[in-house]
Amino acid sequence: MEQLLTETDLTAIGEQMHGLIAELYPICRSITGDGLRRTLRRLQRQVPLEIHEVPTGTQVFDWKVPKEWNIRDAWVKNAAGEKVIDFRRSNLHVVNYSVPIRRTMPLAELRQHLHTLPDRPDWIPYRTSYYQEDWGFCIAADDLAHFKEGDYEVYIDSTLEDGSLTYGEYFVPGRRSDEVLLSCHACHPSLCNDNLSGVVLVASLAELLSSMAIEYSYRFLFIPGTIGSITWLARNEQQAPRIRHGLVVACVGDAGKFHYKRSRRGDAEIDRAVVHALKHSGEEIEVRDFSPYGYDERQFCSPGFNLAVGSLTRTPHGQFPEYHTSADNLDLVRPNALAGSLAVYLSVLRILENNAFYRNLNPKCEPQLGRRGLYRALGGLADAAQSELSMLWVLSLSDGEHSLLEIAEWADLPFDVVLHSVKTLVDHQLLERVSETTS
Amino acid sequence: MEQLLTETDLTAIGEQMHGLIAELYPICRSITGDGLRRTLRRLQRQVPLEIHEVPTGTQVFDWKVPKEWNIRDAWVKNAAGEKVIDFRRSNLHVVNYSVPIRRTMPLAELRQHLHTLPDRPDWIPYRTSYYQEDWGFCIAADDLAHFKEGDYEVYIDSTLEDGSLTYGEYFVPGRRSDEVLLSCHACHPSLCNDNLSGVVLVASLAELLSSMAIEYSYRFLFIPGTIGSITWLARNEQQAPRIRHGLVVACVGDAGKFHYKRSRRGDAEIDRAVVHALKHSGEEIEVRDFSPYGYDERQFCSPGFNLAVGSLTRTPHGQFPEYHTSADNLDLVRPNALAGSLAVYLSVLRILENNAFYRNLNPKCEPQLGRRGLYRALGGLADAAQSELSMLWVLSLSDGEHSLLEIAEWADLPFDVVLHSVKTLVDHQLLERVSETTS
Amino acid sequence: MEQLLTETDLTAIGEQMHGLIAELYPICRSITGDGLRRTLRRLQRQVPLEIHEVPTGTQVFDWKVPKEWNIRDAWVKNAAGEKVIDFRRSNLHVVNYSVPIRRTMPLAELRQHLHTLPDRPDWIPYRTSYYQEDWGFCIAADDLAHFKEGDYEVYIDSTLEDGSLTYGEYFVPGRRSDEVLLSCHACHPSLCNDNLSGVVLVASLAELLSSMAIEYSYRFLFIPGTIGSITWLARNEQQAPRIRHGLVVACVGDAGKFHYKRSRRGDAEIDRAVVHALKHSGEEIEVRDFSPYGYDERQFCSPGFNLAVGSLTRTPHGQFPEYHTSADNLDLVRPNALAGSLAVYLSVLRILENNAFYRNLNPKCEPQLGRRGLYRALGGLADAAQSELSMLWVLSLSDGEHSLLEIAEWADLPFDVVLHSVKTLVDHQLLERVSETTS
Repeated sequence: MEQLLTETDLTAIGEQMHGLIAELYPICRSITGDGLRRTLRRLQRQVPLEIHEVPTGTQVFDWKVPKEWNIRDAWVKNAAGEKVIDFRRSNLHVVNYSVPIRRTMPLAELRQHLHTLPDRPDWIPYRTSYYQEDWGFCIAADDLAHFKEGDYEVYIDSTLEDGSLTYGEYFVPGRRSDEVLLSCHACHPSLCNDNLSGVVLVASLAELLSSMAIEYSYRFLFIPGTIGSITWLARNEQQAPRIRHGLVVACVGDAGKFHYKRSRRGDAEIDRAVVHALKHSGEEIEVRDFSPYGYDERQFCSPGFNLAVGSLTRTPHGQFPEYHTSADNLDLVRPNALAGSLAVYLSVLRILENNAFYRNLNPKCEPQLGRRGLYRALGGLADAAQSELSMLWVLSLSDGEHSLLEIAEWADLPFDVVLHSVKTLVDHQLLERVSETTS
Repeated sequence: MEQLLTETDLTAIGEQMHGLIAELYPICRSITGDGLRRTLRRLQRQVPLEIHEVPTGTQVFDWKVPKEWNIRDAWVKNAAGEKVIDFRRSNLHVVNYSVPIRRTMPLAELRQHLHTLPDRPDWIPYRTSYYQEDWGFCIAADDLAHFKEGDYEVYIDSTLEDGSLTYGEYFVPGRRSDEVLLSCHACHPSLCNDNLSGVVLVASLAELLSSMAIEYSYRFLFIPGTIGSITWLARNEQQAPRIRHGLVVACVGDAGKFHYKRSRRGDAEIDRAVVHALKHSGEEIEVRDFSPYGYDERQFCSPGFNLAVGSLTRTPHGQFPEYHTSADNLDLVRPNALAGSLAVYLSVLRILENNAFYRNLNPKCEPQLGRRGLYRALGGLADAAQSELSMLWVLSLSDGEHSLLEIAEWADLPFDVVLHSVKTLVDHQLLERVSETTS
Repeated sequence: MEQLLTETDLTAIGEQMHGLIAELYPICRSITGDGLRRTLRRLQRQVPLEIHEVPTGTQVFDWKVPKEWNIRDAWVKNAAGEKVIDFRRSNLHVVNYSVPIRRTMPLAELRQHLHTLPDRPDWIPYRTSYYQEDWGFCIAADDLAHFKEGDYEVYIDSTLEDGSLTYGEYFVPGRRSDEVLLSCHACHPSLCNDNLSGVVLVASLAELLSSMAIEYSYRFLFIPGTIGSITWLARNEQQAPRIRHGLVVACVGDAGKFHYKRSRRGDAEIDRAVVHALKHSGEEIEVRDFSPYGYDERQFCSPGFNLAVGSLTRTPHGQFPEYHTSADNLDLVRPNALAGSLAVYLSVLRILENNAFYRNLNPKCEPQLGRRGLYRALGGLADAAQSELSMLWVLSLSDGEHSLLEIAEWADLPFDVVLHSVKTLVDHQLLERVSETTS
């Protein structure tokens, strides 16, 4: 895997990603149903992903695949027959997975089914009721303030019936059967950062990697949150341990700094690769230990699997005010933030791809680099150049016990600088590759 | 072991403890003799402890049980026949273990045997001479200032003869033969915080635990400092390794913050339990590494035993100005401080009693908590409740490698919250107990 | 090895070291040749070191011993026939290892071979060209500013011919065959701190240790940098692992604080001994991790040897402005700084010599120190004396798992205080020596 993207490439891909978000934004997705299917079919135009359908009722570990939910329309009309809430204006207005209803009721009763955000009175909240049959509407508190006493007609034209759970999967074989997992949830309706930014970043990575020479095999998942990863793990229980490194992708389009949540293992190679890549990226970074609350890393890291899967986001879920509201919209995500996230993900993958153990073939004293044109001829200067230092570090630590990533960490040098030294030293028969970092 | 004490209970016990200190305060205790015996007999009214007598001259490791010391009266009279020092006013006036004397001598000679605190001129120091036969008086520097030149009559009506060393021991059997040790020294005369606060706290713990269903067996020791623990260890050398956890109790009645001195092992379960309990107690806390200077943990942690025994105090010995002076009196110790110390000790014991390894019975992906009524139905909120988080932590880390205490530490949750989750999960057949933490 | 030197001794030795530097300063040393030989012969008057000669062309690992360089005279004359550069005024004027030349050339061509320090216009830089045949002159930028256009006659009367590489070695056998290495480079011309300060310190250590009763055998090397250590290692490949501890000595005469660069192992006994000695020396200290750039520790720590060799300097190479310039002269190095460095080195060696594992012969409870006159008789005081604390620490930790150095570290006591306690306890049959720290 070589570095491919110029700044110009990145800028263009950032714009494309934002364009795709705009295209997917209006679709009313859920953990099942046609909105999710339409989303995956649109992605197939970019990446030849396979669409899986898992029937309602299928047992997946402790869970069952739920009924499939679809919605065509929904509104609330006041006594004057005016639509005071209209699903067609925002699919967030309906509590996701609401059962069908058509009934007239007084405001007091309706209020039991209305959700607002008193602290953000002009924003619509996003609410779901996947596993308990219910119905409800979400509206801006400012709008609710105008509701007068009286009767309201409530209409939700949805179905909750046997069907299937849908997810997308794309596999790119590499030289090794060991896999890198990149997973995003694709179950949220009109929300941009929490959901669509991850979807388009994973799609872009999939597209880019499918045309590269790669060491690892790559698996890209576009799944509904929680039930999707549980379903995938249940159907791939035997193969799951092939996943050597993984990242759950979400919230990568806002302007916030990067946050990395470590895998449950805490010091896996993926954890060290992400921290190293971010440290040398020039980006601000905050690293957090694993906790069993968050996205699908909860399932991938459950103790029965304990895969080396972390989560690399910009502002994490629940920590930006727009999270799970109508303000998580097309303005919150930015092309350059998406492009910057892509670049960081690629630099992490580049470390994984190239990390290995090497052996110094001349371990007793330093080899004479000067004779090979690798060291300045004039002596007496106070400092060595970074490239010379890097060669000395690689020679010093390539005793079969330190991977290139560990050498880069110890030397506090960017991985790419170390990698460049490795190539030079291999070319001069001073170093040889010993083994991969995982087997 | 369940939590039993309400705030009202604690307040009442704090008052009782202070009352008992007041009752024991006037007794002239030493490392042997009738003062110590009277103290232990008074404690028998509260706890059915056994009183052991070990004869003078008994070899206990490198030491011999010393002669027994008793004192009836002591004074110094000036030339006018006035008592300028009087043992009956404070038993601190006599150097503990002073040999008998009745003689008249000039002030210059008497001064060789007088001890004062020049920095605290109105306080009487506490001094001992256990292992070198000598005599002396301790007085306030201000009082000594009034002594005029001339002859003084010195009288100490003491005996130092073959007898025995006395200590109290109370054993409460639990479900397991593994023991928890709670030890205090009971050899100091009229000193409240350094000595009596520990005595009454251990007595209260003994009384409370004797009526509880307990996992561990508990051993309570009321012993003279140093020689008492050496004697007990010499007489119980084979059984001592049954002590899995131990605390040396002293200085628990002053208003200072808690200090925990780790066991020599440094990271034993008792060390972690105390630190965790204090961290979540809302109390300020300072943790110190083991050093071979202090109370009887010196002997319990000596390398030939190396028991997991720490020491939990408020202000440690030697670090409050009243230490070993007449100012360590009934005003220095407070009922609410005693009660607070008792509460912390009970919370530590509660951790030891309940700590264990559990196994997640559904380790592959999370179990569906919502279906069991253990998780809120409405989705989309930014934060999970602490009880839900705690269940997720317990499920995530119950892989047989993390005890509940380690889970509580990792999750940074109070042990009781974790314990509550454990009970819920066990009730729902999602978790099972695997093993004790020590065997 | 006992402590021998009084402050008066140290002051005298500091003056002697400075005097020897003054004597060696004018000699034009290089990595081969007569300047190095003369330097070693002068040292033989102080220490009976052996002078080795290794022929040009000898293969030493990846390197070959270079041709021998000697120089008699060199100058540059302007058109008026005036010597504008004169080797006899400073041997730094000629690029070390310059090939012979006698030619007239215009200033523009000469400039290609002139080196200055624009930031320090009155200092002459020090430059070398060991492994690429070239010639050049170094001068103060201020002097070059006066050069006028025109022709200059250039003359270097040097030879670069087959000969040998010279180094000095002195071995002092101790009770053990395990060795302590003290190595310095002796290849620099008129430079005082970087080179001569190390040379005279190693010579003084060699002289002092040759008359002491010592545990370890000591090996002192006076070698040309890089090629010297490579040559020594190549000729002593089998015996090199006998080196248990080593220090590369340089830059020990300036007024700066001490810097210790750890061995590649990072936590070897030598690393801990130096850090401990410096910590308790009252000197300011900065500790740095190993890096593969510096002095001959690069070779001793190369992965094929990985010897426990660190480097203890005052201001490290390259970090004082005078480094590798004519300002690294007799004023930069100070007798008292040299003496202070010697004292620190001796305190490190004293730790290595005396470090060992001891066993507490009375491990169950404390022994009765008071009975043996080792503990104050009067009880009740708040603090123990340092010597009593030290005895308690030694007894507590002498379980066969903690060396004296580890005990001193844990107790935060000076090694000498711990050592004194050890002697007392051994005298009283309370402690016995178990084993050396390395075997």
